Amino acid sequence: MLVVGEKINVINIEIGKAMKERNAEPIVALAKAQLDGGADILDINIGPASKDGHELMPWLVETVQGAVECRLSLDTTNVKAIEAGLKVHKGKALINSASGEPERMTNMLGLAGQYGSDVIGLAMTEKGIPDDINERTAIAYEIVAACGEHNVPLENLFLDPLILPVSVAQNKALEGIEAVRMFRQLNDPPLKTIVGLSNISNGTPDETKAVLDRVYLVMLMEAGLSAAIMDPLDKELIACVRAVKIFRDEMLYAHSFID
Amino acid sequence: MLVVGEKINVINIEIGKAMKERNAEPIVALAKAQLDGGADILDINIGPASKDGHELMPWLVETVQGAVECRLSLDTTNVKAIEAGLKVHKGKALINSASGEPERMTNMLGLAGQYGSDVIGLAMTEKGIPDDINERTAIAYEIVAACGEHNVPLENLFLDPLILPVSVAQNKALEGIEAVRMFRQLNDPPLKTIVGLSNISNGTPDETKAVLDRVYLVMLMEAGLSAAIMDPLDKELIACVRAVKIFRDEMLYAHSFID
Repeated sequence: MLVVGEKINVINIEIGKAMKERNAEPIVALAKAQLDGGADILDINIGPASKDGHELMPWLVETVQGAVECRLSLDTTNVKAIEAGLKVHKGKALINSASGEPERMTNMLGLAGQYGSDVIGLAMTEKGIPDDINERTAIAYEIVAACGEHNVPLENLFLDPLILPVSVAQNKALEGIEAVRMFRQLNDPPLKTIVGLSNISNGTPDETKAVLDRVYLVMLMEAGLSAAIMDPLDKELIACVRAVKIFRDEMLYAHSFID
Repeated sequence: MLVVGEKINVINIEIGKAMKERNAEPIVALAKAQLDGGADILDINIGPASKDGHELMPWLVETVQGAVECRLSLDTTNVKAIEAGLKVHKGKALINSASGEPERMTNMLGLAGQYGSDVIGLAMTEKGIPDDINERTAIAYEIVAACGEHNVPLENLFLDPLILPVSVAQNKALEGIEAVRMFRQLNDPPLKTIVGLSNISNGTPDETKAVLDRVYLVMLMEAGLSAAIMDPLDKELIACVRAVKIFRDEMLYAHSFID
């Protein structure tokens, strides 16, 4: 399973300021810390960035990839910003994200096809996140079908079932896990899946967030999850990922595996 | 999933001394603490107790059940001690344990049939724990067949696949989980399963035990585990059990669920 580090985000006050001022230092430091912690890919979330996203995103891509060797997830609804980022990105980028909303689907899958990128497909439309798991699966299937039209190989697609907070929609928690199983089965070989992990514990007290995130991630991994957008600076969360890999014999056990 | 509290064990120095001196206080205190922590059943492990097990076990059963209301797991290879305990146990006891070793199987299943108790069946013989999962399943099936001969309803049987330490047999960790799935499928409705959880982290450094036990337990629960012999005083481990139950909608989410 791939760990997508979530920390480089405009809503982080220090990082938001650094983005605005084009101050590389705190951004590069956070990139390095996340890779040291266990991230495989780094998410670069600039928000809507309607004014200067097409300048900010390539600056961020070049700044981060100039300092560390890693793939980036370009995270914004601003299509021009995504394209400007893809133009300078080294290696295979991840577009975050397409959805079932027709224009966004066409634009983002179009770029994924053109640049050979990976792309996240959110199981939602302009009307929001459907309550029903079958409706979300239907949207996922539309995205899958559209990949064909835009020359996006299905191995480049990561479907996101959109996890809802357990504190407000407890009966949807299991559906999120079931959706991972169902999305995988939409193709053979199985389709890839991704979640924004911390959504599950949104709105819960701080002292419960850790256990909710960890347990949910292990359950999702058991369902076959391919990637999670999460905090790679959370050592115990990363230790859980490694423990699952050890039990599956995907990583060699060592007494020091949590360090 | 049932939590079987493991703490009342002769190898604990204070408890071993209290057992020898028939000193109720520390034993009762540990019983109460485990039930407060989240135990459903309390294991009473007296070791082989070849000399006075037939006196010690009933004293323990009456001591604990005289102070708290709960079911006990009578844990010894001493058949006379088990029978003496069953004679005074109120409610449905759990015999820990039968195995594929013929004499032990006959004796323990005989008592389970006679007293209407639950019984653990270890997937091993006098020759030890088979390396191969299919051999362990074959032993499990022999125990299942023997239940019929001894009037033990299959809903009273808990099969234990015997978890091996990940530090010495990493490639067996997944087999332990697969065994839970396979044992369940030996009957319809599924057979019950149980593990001694801490076996998985035996021999690993203290700082890694917690994450190994927690992650393995969640993976086992996803495979359908019915019960685990574990430490109910480990608040985070109990929090993991509750988190799984919350995600499955088996327990109502509350902000205070880890307290």
